[in-house]
Amino acid sequence: MSGKAVSTTSNSTVGSTTKKQIGIVLFNQFETLDVFGPVEMWGGMPDYEMLMVSQQGGLVRSSQGIETQASYSFETAPQFDILMVPGGMGTRSEINNPAMLAFIQKQDKATQWTVSVCTGAALLAKAGILKQRRATSNKLAFDFAVAQDGDVLWQKQARWVFDGKYVTSSGVSAGTDMALALVEKLYNREQAESIAHWTEYVWNSDPTIDPFAR
Amino acid sequence: MSGKAVSTTSNSTVGSTTKKQIGIVLFNQFETLDVFGPVEMWGGMPDYEMLMVSQQGGLVRSSQGIETQASYSFETAPQFDILMVPGGMGTRSEINNPAMLAFIQKQDKATQWTVSVCTGAALLAKAGILKQRRATSNKLAFDFAVAQDGDVLWQKQARWVFDGKYVTSSGVSAGTDMALALVEKLYNREQAESIAHWTEYVWNSDPTIDPFAR
Repeated sequence: MSGKAVSTTSNSTVGSTTKKQIGIVLFNQFETLDVFGPVEMWGGMPDYEMLMVSQQGGLVRSSQGIETQASYSFETAPQFDILMVPGGMGTRSEINNPAMLAFIQKQDKATQWTVSVCTGAALLAKAGILKQRRATSNKLAFDFAVAQDGDVLWQKQARWVFDGKYVTSSGVSAGTDMALALVEKLYNREQAESIAHWTEYVWNSDPTIDPFAR
Repeated sequence: MSGKAVSTTSNSTVGSTTKKQIGIVLFNQFETLDVFGPVEMWGGMPDYEMLMVSQQGGLVRSSQGIETQASYSFETAPQFDILMVPGGMGTRSEINNPAMLAFIQKQDKATQWTVSVCTGAALLAKAGILKQRRATSNKLAFDFAVAQDGDVLWQKQARWVFDGKYVTSSGVSAGTDMALALVEKLYNREQAESIAHWTEYVWNSDPTIDPFAR
């Protein structure tokens, strides 16, 4: 377990002030499990809380048709300790959304970790924050991610990739495996395995095992 | 693929009228992945849509702190083709909620499938609709489920169980495997495998493989 958790945000209007904050960026047509696989696993970390943010705040609809409440807009969001950007069909338009890219750039300046699932990596790449970093993305939309920035060291076979404070994962379900790997970094192996056991999740804990690489 | 999809509901105010409807029951402190693992997988079925329902409708908070919008209340909900009841800490109080039990009983009279994840099975059992049926639940809270109705044929080792129109799964992540098994029943093996591939999900397709059974 980590020691005393001190919040780095003071202007939060939602959530606790004693926990570190993971900001999850929602947009129209985000992929459901990209968000909620990690939410389930990170929910097992006692010193962190998750807060949803979108450009305007309010209800945001996923590709699977469910609506999740974003407590913050880009304007009202505090500086998060961890920023997480999911993928989904919505990324196809969000790569052309200057407000989205600016929000990612601004948050990234002070995050401890900047994380993506699936084609969320395309947004990080388009924001220009992955240059010369090793990173991965959804294997069925890999060319889409690569096209956003050729200066990223794209990894074609990897369930997820750590490079400095950047953590990118392959498609959809890979985000759940990556989320537990981040728990291991933030705490230890036992904490990650305890969450996997509690959620009856068969964790692929080896990032080099990627059955979906072409 | 199934043939022409004809809606069995006429009083729907949300969603399409040409798709079959899966109603997912939300309550305070539902377990996030119990809901969104199946949502991700069922989202790959072209003839079905998912609609969220709660006692009052509106925003419902999961154990992991995220808020999901329920489009229907128990009063406004149409008859669903498939009813799905998740688990989570909230089930500990919901077993004593007559409105919840009555809603499950009423819906179950005309569902084609009645489904649960995790301790959602405790709610189905308490509603009395699993008598003499084989069923399973979360392995870490198995006694809690069993205590709701001793006339259920509880299965201690099973990732999920089909018995007639009733489908119950073990804890949290087991619901995602079960959801794909239901896709296989509603369509075919190829459709289930296609969704698993698209979501980069390593599907445990054998219900007898249950690494979390005591």
